[in-house]
Amino acid sequence: MAAPDSYIAEHLSSFLDDFAELIAIPSISTDPGHTEDVRKAAGWVRQRMEQAGLSASVEETGGHPVVLGRHDAGPGAPTLLVYAHYDVQPADPLGEWRSPPFELTREGENFVARGAADDKAQVILQIGAAEAALRTTGLPVSLTLLFEGEEEVGSTHLPAYVAAHRKELRADHAVIADSMMFSPTRPSLIFGTRGMAYVEIAVRTATHDLHSGQYGGAVSNPAHVLARIIASFHHPDGRVAIEGFYDDVLETPADLRAGWAALGYDEAAFQRSAGGAALRGEPGYSTPERLWIRPCLDVNGIVGGYTGPGKKTVLPASAKAKVSCRLVPDQDPADVARLLRRHLDDHGFKDVKADLLGAEKPARTPLDAPFARVCADAAKAVWNVTPVVTPMMAGSGPMHVLGAKFGIPTVMPAGIGYAGCNVHAPNENVRVDDYIAGIKYFATIFADFAH
Amino acid sequence: MAAPDSYIAEHLSSFLDDFAELIAIPSISTDPGHTEDVRKAAGWVRQRMEQAGLSASVEETGGHPVVLGRHDAGPGAPTLLVYAHYDVQPADPLGEWRSPPFELTREGENFVARGAADDKAQVILQIGAAEAALRTTGLPVSLTLLFEGEEEVGSTHLPAYVAAHRKELRADHAVIADSMMFSPTRPSLIFGTRGMAYVEIAVRTATHDLHSGQYGGAVSNPAHVLARIIASFHHPDGRVAIEGFYDDVLETPADLRAGWAALGYDEAAFQRSAGGAALRGEPGYSTPERLWIRPCLDVNGIVGGYTGPGKKTVLPASAKAKVSCRLVPDQDPADVARLLRRHLDDHGFKDVKADLLGAEKPARTPLDAPFARVCADAAKAVWNVTPVVTPMMAGSGPMHVLGAKFGIPTVMPAGIGYAGCNVHAPNENVRVDDYIAGIKYFATIFADFAH
Repeated sequence: MAAPDSYIAEHLSSFLDDFAELIAIPSISTDPGHTEDVRKAAGWVRQRMEQAGLSASVEETGGHPVVLGRHDAGPGAPTLLVYAHYDVQPADPLGEWRSPPFELTREGENFVARGAADDKAQVILQIGAAEAALRTTGLPVSLTLLFEGEEEVGSTHLPAYVAAHRKELRADHAVIADSMMFSPTRPSLIFGTRGMAYVEIAVRTATHDLHSGQYGGAVSNPAHVLARIIASFHHPDGRVAIEGFYDDVLETPADLRAGWAALGYDEAAFQRSAGGAALRGEPGYSTPERLWIRPCLDVNGIVGGYTGPGKKTVLPASAKAKVSCRLVPDQDPADVARLLRRHLDDHGFKDVKADLLGAEKPARTPLDAPFARVCADAAKAVWNVTPVVTPMMAGSGPMHVLGAKFGIPTVMPAGIGYAGCNVHAPNENVRVDDYIAGIKYFATIFADFAH
Repeated sequence: MAAPDSYIAEHLSSFLDDFAELIAIPSISTDPGHTEDVRKAAGWVRQRMEQAGLSASVEETGGHPVVLGRHDAGPGAPTLLVYAHYDVQPADPLGEWRSPPFELTREGENFVARGAADDKAQVILQIGAAEAALRTTGLPVSLTLLFEGEEEVGSTHLPAYVAAHRKELRADHAVIADSMMFSPTRPSLIFGTRGMAYVEIAVRTATHDLHSGQYGGAVSNPAHVLARIIASFHHPDGRVAIEGFYDDVLETPADLRAGWAALGYDEAAFQRSAGGAALRGEPGYSTPERLWIRPCLDVNGIVGGYTGPGKKTVLPASAKAKVSCRLVPDQDPADVARLLRRHLDDHGFKDVKADLLGAEKPARTPLDAPFARVCADAAKAVWNVTPVVTPMMAGSGPMHVLGAKFGIPTVMPAGIGYAGCNVHAPNENVRVDDYIAGIKYFATIFADFAH
């Protein structure tokens, strides 16, 4: 089974040319000025898929398109759905880049460019891995590569697209190729993503702003009300104080938690990556546990009254906050939104509005899914180290939309990117070695999958 | 002493022409596009003062100018300093005006225009009252009319101007002609203004905003910290919870409070003018008491994280609030800022910044100041009703800067404007009768003053 590896080694410089070509298309999904670039990138990906021997199509979604690449291994072969995304974040602030963001630039052992780690490397290496198998041993698995163009703008049209194409996207197993290694030297295998209930809380006390001299001290102030509401969401020790919030949280087996305790999670590195923020959270859990297996509630934004420079003597007529809860199995976003509403009612805030702006269900594949074994073995073969098993990752993602919703076991096998590779920031980078290892990793997964 | 009144009656239409001319100059002090209009208004006022028989000058301040008008009644005559302002607020939203904002328009018993009540009527009627005296019985008081061009932008340059011209502005008594009647049928005589300590509170937890998925629940959130701080500023019953906040507050005599209780303060009208805001404040005090004799703390603005439409999954790196305390004698803004700082330190917020952006001392003239008697008697002569004695008004003003600071007894005799005349709003208006009564009022004050 060395043949795909030989193909990869022989075609390495061509795979790097591909990477540079895709990087050079600034497919910034959030910027209307780059809509055509996003579409150009989709066309490039389709063309490259066809060149690899896949059947490929650019699929309309109502927003930026999805690109599908497919291989049919015949009846009886298992089907694997692979997700990645070809859109990128803006490159601002441009002045902080050491090289042009849309030129793949080698810098020591890294490639530097916008999208190098998130997520264009994955796009190239999935296609490369499929090509290596198809041109050598053959690809024994039916493959659907689904590459999204809206990941960086919240996957707006993905759920509807997936729902409308349920049959074509049917799969036995799924892989999300958009996550991070546990550390620079240790790949990870992630089995879940946190869900989310995103609520906007709006307090209005008057029809118009008031002069703080003429009314101050005699009328209700919405910023005071909002502050009391936000303060009421947590107990002093850090636990969320909304009644019933933790009721549906599944406990994590003690042996798994004990295993993590031995991993040597680098809290100092995490804190550096967090811009020096103090580490705080639910008592009784370590930082990785707070991120992986526990839910939380955070204010994402707050505004009311005068927010410019200097002083203005105004009493705001309204104030609002955006509040998001990250959820873990088996919490349900709609249930959590109802608990939050009841919390407001019970604390004297019946008049305060709370609108659910976004809901994503948490997702988790059983840790003993046989398919996960294939990914773990492949990682060990490529990196000579067992990947860290993470039942959840901190963020959200399309795991529920693509897989869990339909009962498809889904994992995130991460061999590229780690804290410090500047995802979403200037000088985003990926290690050259990881890029090459990543192609081999997926070629191995594809090959071993059918066994 | 009927002669000034006759003069006023004979020249009424000319005084109205003056009013219309001054209104027609859009002296919007906050709008750089109207800087020349502010200066044009200053020039118009100076010219009109000279026409009245006063010596007049436009005085540079570093910002919009002050206009001074003076009459020297000779040695032994008392000196009266009169303050008003000739600048106005913008007229936005323009679409809500029933007539062009900078055309003095008669509408039933009112004049409608920007500045009609605040404060151009006062400018005209002070000059008119001085002229009526000078052209008839003579003006037995040395008079300094000080008309400011920056009241609507916070009197930025007034304190320094007054300090630098202390000698020329020396006076025995002072009048601030920029306040409101107690009700549409009842003038008031106001003896004080609340002071202010305006503080910006800034919480920073990280060098940059963070992804709420990758960090949520594991790091400190500055919006939560700020909410806890704001919530800590008040007891649940509405009292300010900063230790020592009320220590320097002078108690108001019980008979005065009893008198107010009998006045029939219209809380419903106040609430309507407050855009329907719920009436809340320090327990044990009525709405007018909360405004007139009690200090308070209010958030003027709050901001942090994502505040645009929809959802963005960000953890803010910082959050800030603007907080102002309205103060009454003998509170000192610097002391209050120190108490607030100590409150933060004592509640676990040592790292939080609190910068004093603005400080105004409260001011109050003794209620038995003989000079106040003159104003009260003049009001009774003109309106046939005793003015309501108000030891303080809710807002601030130049009372400390002009008068109290130098021990000059200062009052605000209000016979123009009341809640409902749309000050700072579209269709600002003043009653024609009040405008005429106002000229007589000040002519009477000027005449009786020297007796």
